[in-house]
Amino acid sequence: MSGDFSFRTEVLPADREAVRAILESSGFFYPEEVDVAVELVEERLARGLASGYHFDFAETGGQVAGYTCFGPIACTKDSFDLYWIGVRQDRRGAGLGRSLLARAEDRIRSLGGGRIYVETSSRPQYEPTRGFYLSRGYRVEAVLDGFYGPADGKVIFLKVL
Amino acid sequence: MSGDFSFRTEVLPADREAVRAILESSGFFYPEEVDVAVELVEERLARGLASGYHFDFAETGGQVAGYTCFGPIACTKDSFDLYWIGVRQDRRGAGLGRSLLARAEDRIRSLGGGRIYVETSSRPQYEPTRGFYLSRGYRVEAVLDGFYGPADGKVIFLKVL
Repeated sequence: MSGDFSFRTEVLPADREAVRAILESSGFFYPEEVDVAVELVEERLARGLASGYHFDFAETGGQVAGYTCFGPIACTKDSFDLYWIGVRQDRRGAGLGRSLLARAEDRIRSLGGGRIYVETSSRPQYEPTRGFYLSRGYRVEAVLDGFYGPADGKVIFLKVL
Repeated sequence: MSGDFSFRTEVLPADREAVRAILESSGFFYPEEVDVAVELVEERLARGLASGYHFDFAETGGQVAGYTCFGPIACTKDSFDLYWIGVRQDRRGAGLGRSLLARAEDRIRSLGGGRIYVETSSRPQYEPTRGFYLSRGYRVEAVLDGFYGPADGKVIFLKVL
């Protein structure tokens, strides 16, 4: 149901603000987390593909509606990290997250990837996020209790391609 | 038993080659892993403490005999990664690894850290490494089978300070 989106893997300077706006729209992320996401865009702009960060932006009406960021994990044979997947709050519910995830998986496969790791929080507010990954064929590979903070563990999902 | 070492937390340009020599001396690491370790030195030289990489070098006779690299994990309350600990092959067996680890733990504590994560391989050749962490109060928090490659999982150790 994302037929009205166009996708773009090139990264533009304006994507710094697009990424910030998407993540802030969710009301989910701490400012530090948003800063880290924007830094990945900046790394990519500065160093190109040598940064190891691949992006995919979904656009509609001249606006970025969602994006993914992923890349190979150094010193592994074929493991990739899906660092970020975000959809603007006002574009949710149209299947864009599923489309972006499927596209990222295709790109990772074409880059030689065999395993995709995704990390998220164990906090209750992330239950829909965890359910999303489970519904897309990811399994919980490990849980690190207290990783992010008290009562805030890290859940590591894995999908073997 | 490391009374004849002096320690230095300042990072010098020559440490790029020192780190390379230490890690290569073990015969353990893949060239890509050594490159990643050297990149952390370069990041620190380029960006200072803003890089998030802290170092500690042990010297004797004008030569670097071992080192640690660690830093806070972004978006966590007080979790730190111990990225690297290395001792030159010809300086092993004198307790320098234990000294370096204890010093890193003290530094992390003074930086506000409460949890130290260390990642290593599940391969048989890393059994002494894993035994070292277990003997220093670390516990296995998770194992990601096949993370680095077939039959090469990632073992995540944790010490709560």
